[in-house]
Formats: sequence, C-alpha cells, structure tokens
Amino acid sequence: MLDNIKILHGNGVHHVSVRTHVNVDPAKLKSLRQRWSVKPSEMSKKTLNPIRAIVDGMKLTPNPEKPMIALSIGDPTVFGNLPTDDTVLQAMKEAIDSHKYNGYAPSVGYQKSREVVADFYSCPEAPLDGKDVILTSGCSQAIELAISVLCNPGDNILVPRPGFSLYKTLAVSMGIQVKHYNLLPEKSWEIDLQHLESLIDDKTACLIVNNPSNPCGSVFSREHLHKILSVASRNCIPILADEIYGDMVFPGCDFQPLAPLSSDVPILSCGGLAKRWLVPGWRMGWILIHDRNDIFGTAIREGLVKLSQRILGPCTVVQGALESILNDTPPEFYQGTISFLKSNSEICYSELSTVPGLNPVMPSGAMYIMVGIEMEHFPDFQNDVEFTERLVTEQSVFCLPATAFEYPNFFRIVVTVPEEMMIEACIRIREFCARHYRPRSQDSHELDQ
Amino acid sequence: MLDNIKILHGNGVHHVSVRTHVNVDPAKLKSLRQRWSVKPSEMSKKTLNPIRAIVDGMKLTPNPEKPMIALSIGDPTVFGNLPTDDTVLQAMKEAIDSHKYNGYAPSVGYQKSREVVADFYSCPEAPLDGKDVILTSGCSQAIELAISVLCNPGDNILVPRPGFSLYKTLAVSMGIQVKHYNLLPEKSWEIDLQHLESLIDDKTACLIVNNPSNPCGSVFSREHLHKILSVASRNCIPILADEIYGDMVFPGCDFQPLAPLSSDVPILSCGGLAKRWLVPGWRMGWILIHDRNDIFGTAIREGLVKLSQRILGPCTVVQGALESILNDTPPEFYQGTISFLKSNSEICYSELSTVPGLNPVMPSGAMYIMVGIEMEHFPDFQNDVEFTERLVTEQSVFCLPATAFEYPNFFRIVVTVPEEMMIEACIRIREFCARHYRPRSQDSHELDQ
Ligand SMILES: Cc1ncc(COP(=O)(O)O)c(C=O)c1O
Ligand SMILES: Cc1ncc(COP(=O)(O)O)c(C=O)c1O
Repeated sequence: MLDNIKILHGNGVHHVSVRTHVNVDPAKLKSLRQRWSVKPSEMSKKTLNPIRAIVDGMKLTPNPEKPMIALSIGDPTVFGNLPTDDTVLQAMKEAIDSHKYNGYAPSVGYQKSREVVADFYSCPEAPLDGKDVILTSGCSQAIELAISVLCNPGDNILVPRPGFSLYKTLAVSMGIQVKHYNLLPEKSWEIDLQHLESLIDDKTACLIVNNPSNPCGSVFSREHLHKILSVASRNCIPILADEIYGDMVFPGCDFQPLAPLSSDVPILSCGGLAKRWLVPGWRMGWILIHDRNDIFGTAIREGLVKLSQRILGPCTVVQGALESILNDTPPEFYQGTISFLKSNSEICYSELSTVPGLNPVMPSGAMYIMVGIEMEHFPDFQNDVEFTERLVTEQSVFCLPATAFEYPNFFRIVVTVPEEMMIEACIRIREFCARHYRPRSQDSHELDQ
Repeated sequence: MLDNIKILHGNGVHHVSVRTHVNVDPAKLKSLRQRWSVKPSEMSKKTLNPIRAIVDGMKLTPNPEKPMIALSIGDPTVFGNLPTDDTVLQAMKEAIDSHKYNGYAPSVGYQKSREVVADFYSCPEAPLDGKDVILTSGCSQAIELAISVLCNPGDNILVPRPGFSLYKTLAVSMGIQVKHYNLLPEKSWEIDLQHLESLIDDKTACLIVNNPSNPCGSVFSREHLHKILSVASRNCIPILADEIYGDMVFPGCDFQPLAPLSSDVPILSCGGLAKRWLVPGWRMGWILIHDRNDIFGTAIREGLVKLSQRILGPCTVVQGALESILNDTPPEFYQGTISFLKSNSEICYSELSTVPGLNPVMPSGAMYIMVGIEMEHFPDFQNDVEFTERLVTEQSVFCLPATAFEYPNFFRIVVTVPEEMMIEACIRIREFCARHYRPRSQDSHELDQ
C-alpha cells in the first residue's frame, strides 16, 4: 500500500510538470466541449423533398373572389367523393373486435397477412408465397427498403423523368446517385429505351419502373414492358417496380404487372392499400419478391428482413384486416373508382385540349393528367412554376408544376376531385390561358418591328 | 468538317490498334455487366439485431414433458391476460366510423393529434405545444429519427449497458459508433456517472437515457436524473430520453420525466402507445422536442420534419383515436396494469432470491426483472446463453440471456405472463438451479485433489 501511494504520488508530480511544460489550459482537459452546438445530420439535410421545396417557395395567395380548387394533392380522399368501401372499414372494426391484432407482429408482418397478399397477387407465371411478401409502412417504406437493400452509397439508380419524387429524395439521402431516363409524352409516356440503356454503367444498382405512372397516368403495354425487361436482362440490372397504381387502369386498357413477363430479371414489386383501396393514411404497403431465377437468393431476402427490424412493420390492425379487405371488397367498388377517374380525365382532357397553348396528354390510368404548356405563348411567365403560381393568384386553382417531377413546362392535375370542381377548374384554366396567351406569329411580328 | 473527319479517322485507327494490342474482347465493351450479381447493401448487412443473432443461434428444444413458458418476449399482449382498455378499442372504432382518418396526414402527424400528445405530457416546467410533437411509426421510429437527425457517420453515441439493443442496431447501421456506459446493479441500476463522463469525447453526438429501463425495470430517482443532466450540461451533449415505459412504475415509486428537470439540456423524449396502453402492434410513437434553451433551434426541428417525409408517419386511424385514448382511458386501467406487474415482480423476485446461485434485482417499474447468475456455481454452463438454452431443454422455460443486452451472466424475465405461469416458471427455474448448482468450496476442494 505504501509503495502504491508513493508511486501514485510520483506519477502525480511528474504529470503536473508535463502539463505545465506544454502549457495546456487545464480547463480544456476537463471538458471537451465548452459550448452547445447541435447541428442536424448531413443525412437529414440531404433528405430533400422537391415538391415541398418548390411549393414552399411559391406565393400561393388565392383570388379572394373565387373559392380555392386544389388539383395538387395525390390524396383521393380529400373531397369525400371517393370514400373507401364499407367492406374495408368493416374489416378494420372486426380486426379490432377480435382482440387478436394488438401485439407485435413479426417485423415483416403476420405470416397469415403475408399469405393473403401473396395469394391476391400470385399468378401461374409468377407464383407468390407468404415468404415472398414483406409488409411495410406504406408503399413509401416499401420503396425505402427496396432501395436500401439493393444500393450502396456511390451506386446509381435509374428513375423516370417525369417521375415520383420520393425515389430521388430517398436515394440522395443515402448517397446514391440518381440518373433520370426520359419518358416520351408523344408516345404516351413510354420510356426512351435507348436513353435508358445509355445511362447504365457498372455502378447501376437498380432500375425503377413506375407503372401506372405518377405523374403521367400512363400505362405501359405488354410489348413495351417486354422491351424494358430486355434492357434490364441484357445489363443484369434488378428492377424496383412501383406498382402502387396497379389495376387502376381505365376500361379498354390492361394493367400488366411486370414480374410475370420475365423469369430471369429479379423484381421487387412495391404496392399497398393507399390508392386502389383509397386509404393512404393507413400506411399499409408491401414488397413482392419475384426471383424465379434465384438472383436475389436468400441474401436479399435476409437483408430485407433485417432492415424491417428497424421500425417493425405496419399497424397490426390493418394487417389483421387485410384478408377481408383483399378478398371481400366487391368488384363494383374498384370499377366505380376507375370509371369516375376515367370520366373526370376525359372531361379534363377534352376541355384543356381545345385551350390554345396547352397540350394535355390523355392518361390511361392512375389519377393524374399531365398538361404541357407552350411557354413561348405565355411570355408573362418564365416557367411552369410561375404559370401555376399565377393560376392560384388569379383563378384560385392550384396544380403542381411538373418541375416538381423534374419536368419543366408541364403541370399535373389530380383527377380525383368532384366532377363539378373538375369542370369549374377547367373553365378557370381556360380563362387564365386566354388572358395570357400570345400567338407566336404576332410575337415575332412585334419583335421584327 | 473534313479536318474533323480526318482527325476522327486517325483516332479511330489508332484506337483499334490499341484494342488489338491489349486484346480486349469487343463484346465486353458493349455491355458493362455480363452476369447477374445482386448483393445486399452494406447498410442492410450492418443492420444487426443481437437478440435475433443470439436467439437464432440457440438450440431451443423444449422438454416435451413440460409445456413451454416464454418469459422472453417484451410483448405484454401475448398471453391475453393484459388486454388494452375498452376505451382504447372504442376510440379506434369511432375513428373508423368518422370516415375522417383515411387520407394522408402531414408526415409528422395531424396537428390535432400532435396537440393531444403535447397536452398530455405538457407540464409547467416543460411546456409542450403541438409543434413540439412528431408522431412516428412506433417508438422504434422515434428513436431512429432522433438518432438520424443528431448523428453523422463517425460520431458516437452513449448507450446504457445493459440496454435495449435497438440503439446499437440503428447506430451501427448508420456508421455511428456505440459507447456503452455501465449501469450498476448494486445501486438499482443507476448509471456509473464517472464511467459515463469518461466516455465523452468531441465526437459524442448524443446520450441515450432509458428510464424506466428495459431490461432492468429500474426507475431513476429525481436526484440521479439531476446528476445525469449535469454530465450532459457540462459536456454539452443532447439527450435522447427513451421514456416508452414512462409512468409504468410501481406504487410508492415515482416516474420523473427527464425534460422538466433541465432547461438547458436539449432533449428528444421518445415514447408511444406500445407499453402503457398495451397495443405495441399499432405502431404509434412520438418524439417530444424539449428545447427551452433553444439549442436545437429550427434546424433540428426541420431535420426531423424532413426525415419524417421518407415514410410519412403512423397509421391515421390510430392518430385519430389518440385524443380519446389519452384523455378518456380510466386511471383504473393504468393502475391495474401496474399492480399486476408489481405483484408478478414480487413473486418472481422473492422466489428467485432464495435460489442459491441466482441474484435477482428487484425492479421498480417497466415489465422486466434482471437475474444475476453466479456462473462459478454453475460449472455445467459456459455462460448465460448456455444457461438459458438448457433451461429450455430441461424445463421448457425461456428467458433471454442478457448477453443480448451486452450484459453477460444475467438473464431477463418478462413479468407480464399470467401469475400461475410466473409461479410455475419460478419453480422450474429453482429445480433447474438446484440440479446444476455446485457450491464453490466443494468445487475448489475437488480441484485441490
Ligand atoms: C408512384 C407512387 N409510389 C409510391 C407512393 C407512396 O405510397 P404510400 O402512400 O403507400 O407510401 C405514391 C404516393 O403518392 C406514388 O404516387
Ligand atoms: C426501451 C424500449 N424502447 C423502445 C421500444 C420500442 O417501442 P415500439 O414498439 O413502440 O417501437 C422498446 C420495445 O420493446 C423498448 O423496450
């Protein structure tokens, strides 16, 4: 003991002399941080939502003389004209009354609920099993998990332009590069396949195909899907198929899921209840794992399971209700939604296609219509953002400028609003365009003088 | 033009000769990928769940003669003896019937629902407002968002040992280093404050305090919380307070939320419906932002909002039900749960504290009890994992080895099981220990020979 004390004492003296020698402020040694400085992480700063960035930057002051009509929000429930089916609500109440769905489910979902989804989407060419389904908190989380499992920082993914902005938001936040492939409005928004293929390099980790499309409302033909699959197959790129609008196609048109058309390209198909069952707030989504060529193997499946354990899946009550929601909702419900969307799309298309300076592209599904603006005929506005901003100021009609989808000089109209609103909005858009339209010949004539 | 062509031609010839020279297969130049190779991302590989890793590695074959008793799962609903209150279920059904909660909510939750949570937790010393609440998909996502907004890769966070494994799972997957500070079983699992402070360096981005504790069932005194806050304040480290077991403390003990005790340390308090309202599957959690010293400022709040936009918040039906769940659930419900947990804890504690070789630590709250194993008296087993594995094989009782919480030589018992099961489990554990216990003196005696 005495020895110990001596040694300690000796060290102590030695220590003090060193500190004096190098002239270190003893206060600094005590605490490494002298003041508060809490900054948001790089990741949170990189999580950019272009729609918010653009909309927040707009001066959206409606004309007080006219009630506001918002054609901007991809939420079919806001006007109350498109309620979900009673079967769907009843299923939820039964799930609650059963007292069976209050505890934790496995992080990928109850086995039974996964099987229900598998059965609903299974087909002979692309059979699905409970183990091929991962239940997620909305299609958004399905997309997040799919990108997370397939891509590393430094990789790149191919996303459509125009396209849903979440792909980029998620990818950029993860340090994944985004390459946009073009959709061709003159070909009903088919993919420019040559452009698509030219973007592929050895860092390309995933191709995102969104069909039916937000914001285009387009639906790809089987033939076109085959060509997309060829590109993926030739270049060995797995596909994330965002099919959240699956089956929401107008009569006469056919929705073809991607996976049954290929047995060699591995596909993660993302979907959910949000759109077709008109309950986006319930946050029920899923990934269907299609891997008949065993490319993903167990590694990707295990990766998805691991990632799902971070926040533990969607609400169990909705999981419990899934069986009845998927199996008992009457066909008339789906048909009713679709015929409403088609009728509204036709009204909107036929109204706007006769407006000088506008070029609407008729959709075949989903719940959107894209409208091209011949900007050269609207010299009052610099771009689609200004155009749509002034449409609010003057006519109290709000459409999203397609710059939010990386596609300037277009705007997107949501066709889920009640018919009278759709008609009234089109009238106001027509008035607005008439007021600001300048025929080109006149323009150049004036310039000549 | 001619010049250009000549140059191009010249280059081309040169190029071809090079290609011939280095013997590159022209087919390789066409496509960058010749074969499929889809690997799970590094992030998914780094998302490790220690509980799964340990449990999956255990041989869990129960004794066929005895029905299995699982004391391993932190889910109070599995045995049906702890149902949620009818008010809670009724609130859900009313939310469904209202037809008001099917659409998208803002990604941080409905304003009204945020206000309801704010009012529920607001107190004069730490007032809360709707804007201070972020609704999340379970407390797990609350923790994920809090870590995500505060930490960058390369930073470190301080987490309790023993402690809930999700902190490490999330941090490691994000490239954040985890430093464990010790809890002291002999001081009712208080934090070893000196050890805690010694771990802080200039890369320390956040201190996680879990009170009441999983796996310890401990509840910190106000005095101890003040000392923790002093460490954070002195070193300018923000706190993530995981208070998911808040208010789940036994009569005679007091739960003191952390935030009201400090006006200078910025605190993100994470909670949710899972435990106190006994509906963990519903995935309703929240972050309460306490920042009376304006250290987080708008930057951290905005960071949280941005991060919430990735997957868009929890199920809207549960959000809609929150008001009634928080305001109308009768006090008797909470009291009933707590007195049950206390009674079961006492049974378990008093049973096991007389078992030679075991040292249970009496909890004051939550739903767990930690039991120390004097491994030197159980030479049949290498460690807590083997001990609990054999407890399954021989006695069909499954407790989680505390290695899952980075705390070897302990195991954790969940006290939410029905009383008869708790008693039966304790009897079987006693039998098991009696069979394998070797008094130390005898051991050393044998070794001496
Ligand atoms: C193309 C597309 N994918 C995914 C989503 C997200 O769906 P969820 O609300 O289920 O997260 C949307 C929502 O608008 C979408 O338009
Ligand atoms: C300490 C602690 N924090 C957070 C959680 C996660 O809660 P939730 O189910 O709401 O995600 C748990 C769940 O067991 C826990 O024990």
